[in-house]
Amino acid sequence: MIKKRYLLSPGPTPLPEEVLSLASEPIFHHRTPQFSQNYMDVTDGLKYVFQTENDVYILASTGSGAMEAAVVNTLSPGDKVICINCGKFGARWAHIARAYGADVKEIVLEWGDNFSKAQLAEVLQEVPETKAVFSTLFATSTGALYDIQGFGEEVSSTKTILVVDGISGLGTTPCPMDDWNVDVLISGSQKAFMTPPGLSYISFSEKAWDLVESSTMPKFYYDAREYRKSLKNKTSPWSPAISLILQQKKSLDIIKSIGLENLIHHHQILGDATRAGVQAIGLDLLPTCPGNVLTAVKVPEGIDGIKLVNIMHDKYKVYIAGAQDPHKGDFFRIAHLGYIGGFDVITGLSALEMTLMDLGYSFEPGQAIKAAEEILKENWQ
Amino acid sequence: MIKKRYLLSPGPTPLPEEVLSLASEPIFHHRTPQFSQNYMDVTDGLKYVFQTENDVYILASTGSGAMEAAVVNTLSPGDKVICINCGKFGARWAHIARAYGADVKEIVLEWGDNFSKAQLAEVLQEVPETKAVFSTLFATSTGALYDIQGFGEEVSSTKTILVVDGISGLGTTPCPMDDWNVDVLISGSQKAFMTPPGLSYISFSEKAWDLVESSTMPKFYYDAREYRKSLKNKTSPWSPAISLILQQKKSLDIIKSIGLENLIHHHQILGDATRAGVQAIGLDLLPTCPGNVLTAVKVPEGIDGIKLVNIMHDKYKVYIAGAQDPHKGDFFRIAHLGYIGGFDVITGLSALEMTLMDLGYSFEPGQAIKAAEEILKENWQ
Repeated sequence: MIKKRYLLSPGPTPLPEEVLSLASEPIFHHRTPQFSQNYMDVTDGLKYVFQTENDVYILASTGSGAMEAAVVNTLSPGDKVICINCGKFGARWAHIARAYGADVKEIVLEWGDNFSKAQLAEVLQEVPETKAVFSTLFATSTGALYDIQGFGEEVSSTKTILVVDGISGLGTTPCPMDDWNVDVLISGSQKAFMTPPGLSYISFSEKAWDLVESSTMPKFYYDAREYRKSLKNKTSPWSPAISLILQQKKSLDIIKSIGLENLIHHHQILGDATRAGVQAIGLDLLPTCPGNVLTAVKVPEGIDGIKLVNIMHDKYKVYIAGAQDPHKGDFFRIAHLGYIGGFDVITGLSALEMTLMDLGYSFEPGQAIKAAEEILKENWQ
Repeated sequence: MIKKRYLLSPGPTPLPEEVLSLASEPIFHHRTPQFSQNYMDVTDGLKYVFQTENDVYILASTGSGAMEAAVVNTLSPGDKVICINCGKFGARWAHIARAYGADVKEIVLEWGDNFSKAQLAEVLQEVPETKAVFSTLFATSTGALYDIQGFGEEVSSTKTILVVDGISGLGTTPCPMDDWNVDVLISGSQKAFMTPPGLSYISFSEKAWDLVESSTMPKFYYDAREYRKSLKNKTSPWSPAISLILQQKKSLDIIKSIGLENLIHHHQILGDATRAGVQAIGLDLLPTCPGNVLTAVKVPEGIDGIKLVNIMHDKYKVYIAGAQDPHKGDFFRIAHLGYIGGFDVITGLSALEMTLMDLGYSFEPGQAIKAAEEILKENWQ
């Protein structure tokens, strides 16, 4: 049989055809008015998605680079910080902060568990001299959404800044940087931004800039002051990733034509349909508060979770994500992020139904599709 | 919502990415060894799919041009011919033959009805001096498959030639030109050949060549003798459609790597799954002998067939084909032809289920998917 590949992973995500085809256009030089115009257009588009009046800087690196940039620009060695370790990437905040000599209070959550505004308030009371809270909008490794608005309310009246990893979450769920008192917000090109991997984005509030000015952590490539200075000249401090920036401009044009609110609603529908689908065939969700980047689903009793993901990949060519260590085989993750439509959700659920049949799971085939169709058809506009 | 477009039409068909991207490569000149090599590779690949030792000629025109080429090369004005009008394109044989002054006996079938070898034998007895029988392998307008092997058996011992429109059918169902005594076989690039529209193909048996030599119908662009002469010089008589030929070469490489037998089996599985799907939700097929290019499905009582196709197109962006005049609104056609995989069938059936829900048809949603999944998962290899 002819087998097509389907990317239902939380980055890279499928790209619109107009974005893909741009990569085959001739490359041009970056110290030109032509490039500056595109660069500033991308910066403006990013401000629209970040919902901020601050500048947003474009880094030629993937998300983990932007995480490092957030740490090295705002902190000095010995600074006390709180890292909410809500999964693989929450843990990364703590790793990076420790690597640069910060004094880390790491709050380790069970994967998928919630962490409330009230819980943060308690921890902040224990460590009132905390410089920064490092948190996550959407935990890619667990499918959980966190209460950034609440966290912002807790820190806004203090000297502590709120740093948010919005790498996968931004564009799929509300996170207005200025309104919610987020001080540092980062994201990446290969998620809801519908661009290949290779760019990440970072923005600082005025409150964060005060820390940047006094930060003594060693840095060069990620020094925010260099990016601020260069942006005044409508360019980047170092060589920009030209083709990716042109692709990001096209994707931002598409996002603006859809409208941010509609894009968020779109991801809500895809998330609702996927959750309804898996629950209709007796499967349980992992997270307490699921978000709309991906759906993390517990592997049912008696089914080999690693085999399940392998069959999805190798037989059906549907690239969902498995669970990461140390939970490998315990759950799997179907992404509905980026340039994904209703029939991609149907494809993912149909591949899942066939895989579960292959594995001998007892259920009524077709019911996942029926449940998803009922939500999709009502919202298909 | 982000809405992707799905092409489930019987031509143009979706193309493999490697074939699409070729069109953005630089064009080169056609009177060069580089082009000749590609041209001959395509000719060889076409012989593989036509299953013939005869040459296959490449025309820079779509399928109707190849139909005209078949008529004007083999006939002379006043020649008696039989045209099996099994639908829109069967009728076209008669139109073209009459336009050039042939004496046409047109056998008009009800759309979807079969026409047997025995029935052809009867008609041939009535008109023994028939020069040619014009028939169709797969009737694109009705979804019906015809018994070309049987027709070949009837004409092979006579002076009559068998001309077959394999435009949509070739590559989806067996039709070995030499073994089945087909004297003229035509096809087109935008069907199972997985190439954009713009090329068509024609091949003549030795028996057909005898008629070509004596044919007096007026012709220039389609004169087979010019194509035969040029092919000896590894080129085309007139300007070739260079980029399409390079794309066809890539698609033929893909077809050869799949293997013709596997490609035919692939279309069989997709056809079986689609038929099982629509029948599982109470719908009836139009043709007596359905083939695997597309599935023609009767619009159920009380449902507006034109609205159904419009919702599939406008709301779900799934481009199935409606019925053509004079049967508009009576049935619809879901193609499973070309670069189509199992999840394209699932997408088509899911869009159909949602459309039928939108139209208030009474059925159990999910059952079309369940029936298709059961066939697909068993054959997914």
